[in-house]
Amino acid sequence: MIKVLDHGEVRLIDYMGSDLQVSSAARVLEDVGRHRGEADIKLIKYMWNNGHTSPFEHVVFTFYVKAPIFVIRQWQRHRTWSYNEFSARYKEVPDCWYVPDPSHIGVQSLKNHQSRIISADGELLDYHASEVINQACESAFRYYDELLTNGVPREIARGVLPVNTYTEMWATVNLNNLFKFLTLRMDEHAQFEIREYANALLELIKPVVPNSVEAYLNS
Amino acid sequence: MIKVLDHGEVRLIDYMGSDLQVSSAARVLEDVGRHRGEADIKLIKYMWNNGHTSPFEHVVFTFYVKAPIFVIRQWQRHRTWSYNEFSARYKEVPDCWYVPDPSHIGVQSLKNHQSRIISADGELLDYHASEVINQACESAFRYYDELLTNGVPREIARGVLPVNTYTEMWATVNLNNLFKFLTLRMDEHAQFEIREYANALLELIKPVVPNSVEAYLNS
Amino acid sequence: MIKVLDHGEVRLIDYMGSDLQVSSAARVLEDVGRHRGEADIKLIKYMWNNGHTSPFEHVVFTFYVKAPIFVIRQWQRHRTWSYNEFSARYKEVPDCWYVPDPSHIGVQSLKNHQSRIISADGELLDYHASEVINQACESAFRYYDELLTNGVPREIARGVLPVNTYTEMWATVNLNNLFKFLTLRMDEHAQFEIREYANALLELIKPVVPNSVEAYLNS
Amino acid sequence: MIKVLDHGEVRLIDYMGSDLQVSSAARVLEDVGRHRGEADIKLIKYMWNNGHTSPFEHVVFTFYVKAPIFVIRQWQRHRTWSYNEFSARYKEVPDCWYVPDPSHIGVQSLKNHQSRIISADGELLDYHASEVINQACESAFRYYDELLTNGVPREIARGVLPVNTYTEMWATVNLNNLFKFLTLRMDEHAQFEIREYANALLELIKPVVPNSVEAYLNS
Repeated sequence: MIKVLDHGEVRLIDYMGSDLQVSSAARVLEDVGRHRGEADIKLIKYMWNNGHTSPFEHVVFTFYVKAPIFVIRQWQRHRTWSYNEFSARYKEVPDCWYVPDPSHIGVQSLKNHQSRIISADGELLDYHASEVINQACESAFRYYDELLTNGVPREIARGVLPVNTYTEMWATVNLNNLFKFLTLRMDEHAQFEIREYANALLELIKPVVPNSVEAYLNS
Repeated sequence: MIKVLDHGEVRLIDYMGSDLQVSSAARVLEDVGRHRGEADIKLIKYMWNNGHTSPFEHVVFTFYVKAPIFVIRQWQRHRTWSYNEFSARYKEVPDCWYVPDPSHIGVQSLKNHQSRIISADGELLDYHASEVINQACESAFRYYDELLTNGVPREIARGVLPVNTYTEMWATVNLNNLFKFLTLRMDEHAQFEIREYANALLELIKPVVPNSVEAYLNS
Repeated sequence: MIKVLDHGEVRLIDYMGSDLQVSSAARVLEDVGRHRGEADIKLIKYMWNNGHTSPFEHVVFTFYVKAPIFVIRQWQRHRTWSYNEFSARYKEVPDCWYVPDPSHIGVQSLKNHQSRIISADGELLDYHASEVINQACESAFRYYDELLTNGVPREIARGVLPVNTYTEMWATVNLNNLFKFLTLRMDEHAQFEIREYANALLELIKPVVPNSVEAYLNS
Repeated sequence: MIKVLDHGEVRLIDYMGSDLQVSSAARVLEDVGRHRGEADIKLIKYMWNNGHTSPFEHVVFTFYVKAPIFVIRQWQRHRTWSYNEFSARYKEVPDCWYVPDPSHIGVQSLKNHQSRIISADGELLDYHASEVINQACESAFRYYDELLTNGVPREIARGVLPVNTYTEMWATVNLNNLFKFLTLRMDEHAQFEIREYANALLELIKPVVPNSVEAYLNS
C-alpha cells in the first residue's frame, strides 16, 4: 500500500501474470514456459519497442484506490479499465476531503493554460489557500449533514459535496493499457495530483513485472 | 435541442446513418441500398430481437450535453462513448449549478438502498431542501471566486465546487451502444436526473431511426 | 485441459480472482474481504440479476486455445478479449486441419438460413463428406509445401491454406465479458463447432467461480 | 471507390464530421462552430501533437471493404472498429480469390522473420508461384462446389476454402482509431497486402479531413 496526497492511497489487491507470461504469450506457447533468461528479456524489449503490445495484455492488475473525485474523474476517462466505485446513492459519504499542501498549490501557468507551476524553491502564494479550501469543504459537509438529518435522500444530498471529496474504487487494467495510462498521467502536463497516483501505480507493479517496466521506461 | 432539469440541455450536433443503413449493413451491401419498405423493417426487428447488434453500430450520433457533474460521472462510466468535456483546468467554471425542484426531491427509499421515491401525489419533505442546496452551492462558488481572485490556480480552486455544478461535453456513440445506455439509464433504478437525460436522447434520435427505435422499444 | 473437436483444445493458463473477489468489488472493500457465506452468494446473484455487471470484471482468465481458423474468426469478433495468435507470417503452419465427424455434418437448415441441423437419431448425408473435406485440406497443404519448398515467402504461401486449418492463440477475458461470449456462443444459433469451445470454457471456469457461474446459468 | 489488389476494393459509404468538428469538439462548443481558418488548423495540430486524441473521435467513417480473408483477419484484430461481414454460413461464397501478382511475391526476408522482401528492381522467384496459387484456390473451390452439390451444409463446406478467398465487410471507425490503424498498417513491417488497403483508406479520407490528415502525417 502506498499513501498518496493527504488521505489517499493505492493498494495492489491482486494481479495475474509476470514477465514470463508476456514472453510466453508472444510465443503463443501451450502454457507459461520456462524461464530463458536473456532471451525472454530481449523478446519483451523487442515487443514493446516495435508496438507489438498485445502480449502485455495477459498481465492484469486490480488496485484499490482512494482519491479525490476530481482525480477519479480524470482516471475514469480511460475506457480500458474496469471500475467499481463507492456509491453515494447507497451509502453516506465519509467526511474526508483533499486539502492541498501549501507547497503544492503553486501559481497558474500563463504559458500553458491548463497547468499550474509548482516551483522547486517553494515560491508560494502570499495567501492562505489551503485554509480557505479546508473551510469551504468543511462548510459543504455541514450542509450535507444538515440535508441528511432532515431526511433528504442521499443521492440528492450528495450534490453539495465538493470534487475534493475522497471516494474509493476498485480498478482493474492490463499491463498494456496501464502503460498507456502512465504515459499520459505521469506526463508533466497532467495535473500534479493524478501524477502522484500514477507514480504510486508504477511503484506497485515494478516488483511484479520488472523487465516489462524497464522496457517501458527505456522506450 | 431539449431542455433538461433546471439549466441542462441536450443537442443533436450531428449524426450518420439511418434505418436503411442498418439493414444495408446487415446485408453487407456494396453501398447503402434502396428502400425495400417492410422487408427493411422486418430485418431490423429480426436483427435486434436476435442479438445481432453489429448492424446498429454503423449509425452514430454526436450530442452536446450540459449536465451536473454527478450526472456526467454516471454517464462517463459507459466506456463505448467518445467524450470531450469542458476543462476546469483550462477555463474558469461558469457559476451554474443544479437545484432540484422541490417536487423532485422525494424521500430516501428504505427498500432499495440506492434510490429515492418521488411520489406522484407530491408527498414532499416538510423541509426547504431546495433552498439549502442552493445556498450550499452559492457558498461554494463564493469560495471558488475568492480563491481565483487571490491567484490560486484554476485546477486547485475548482476543488471546492460541488458535484451539482453544471459542466458540458460532446458525446459520440453508435446506436447499439446508445440502446444499451438507454436500457440502463431509463430504468427505474437509475437516478431520476440521468433518466431525464436518457429520455431526451431517445426523443432526439427517434426521427432519425424510427424503425430501429421501435424495434428497440418493443423488444 | 479439455480436448475439443478432432485436434483442438482449451487450457486455462492462468486466472485472477474468485467469487469472493466479485462480492468484495461490489462492496468496494479496501481489500479482498473475508467469506460471508450466504451473504456473498446473495450479493453475487443480486448483482448479476440486476445488470450490475462491473464487479464481474475483476475476475480474469487466460486461455490457450487451439481451434480451426473459422472458429477463431468468430471468436475474435468479440472485442473485449485480448488475443495473441500464432503467426503464419513468422512460422510455417503445422499440417493440422479440422475434419468434421460424419455424425456432426448434418444437413443445411431450410428454416434458419445460417444453420445446419444435426439430428440426434444420426440422420446422415448419404455422402462421404468427411473424406472429401480431408482430401481437400490435404491437397491444400501439398500446395503449401510446394510453395514453401520453392522459396515462396511464408506470408504468401499460407494464402492457399483452408479455414479448417488449426491455429493457436492466447485469449484473456474478464468474467463479465466471458459470460456475454457464452450467451452468444452457447446459443443454439451459434455454429456447432464454436459451441463446443464455449462449453469447454464453461467447464474450465466452473471450479474457479462456482457461485458466479450458478448465478449466470440461472438468470 | 478505390480498387485494391486484383479483385479488392474500398468504398467510403458514409461519414460524419470534418476538420471543423474536431476543433469544435476540442473547444466543447454548443454546436459546430464557424470556421476560424488558421486558428482551427493550429488547434488541430496542437491537439494531435500533444496526444489529445479525443476530439478526433467525433469524426466517423463507414467503409465497404472487399479483401482476402487473411487481410480481414489482420484488420479485425483492431477492436475499436465496428464490423459486419459477409456470412459464409448464410450464403454461398462467390468464387473469387486473391492471386498475388508475380512482381509482388518477393522472397522470404531472412532478417525479419515475419516479412518478405519485394525488391524494386523486380527480382523474382524463378518459379511460377502465382500460377500454383491460382491452381490451389481453383481446386479448393471445386471441392467446395462438390460438397454443396452433395447437400453438405454451407457452414461446413466453407471449411475447405483458402484464406485467399475474398470476403466483404462494412467497417466503421472514428478518426482517432483510424489513425492508429494506419500507423500500424502502413508501416513497412505490415504485410504488403494490408498496406495497400491502408493506403486506400488514407486516400478516401483526405478530402474529408485534410487538416487532420496533414497533422497526422507530419507528427
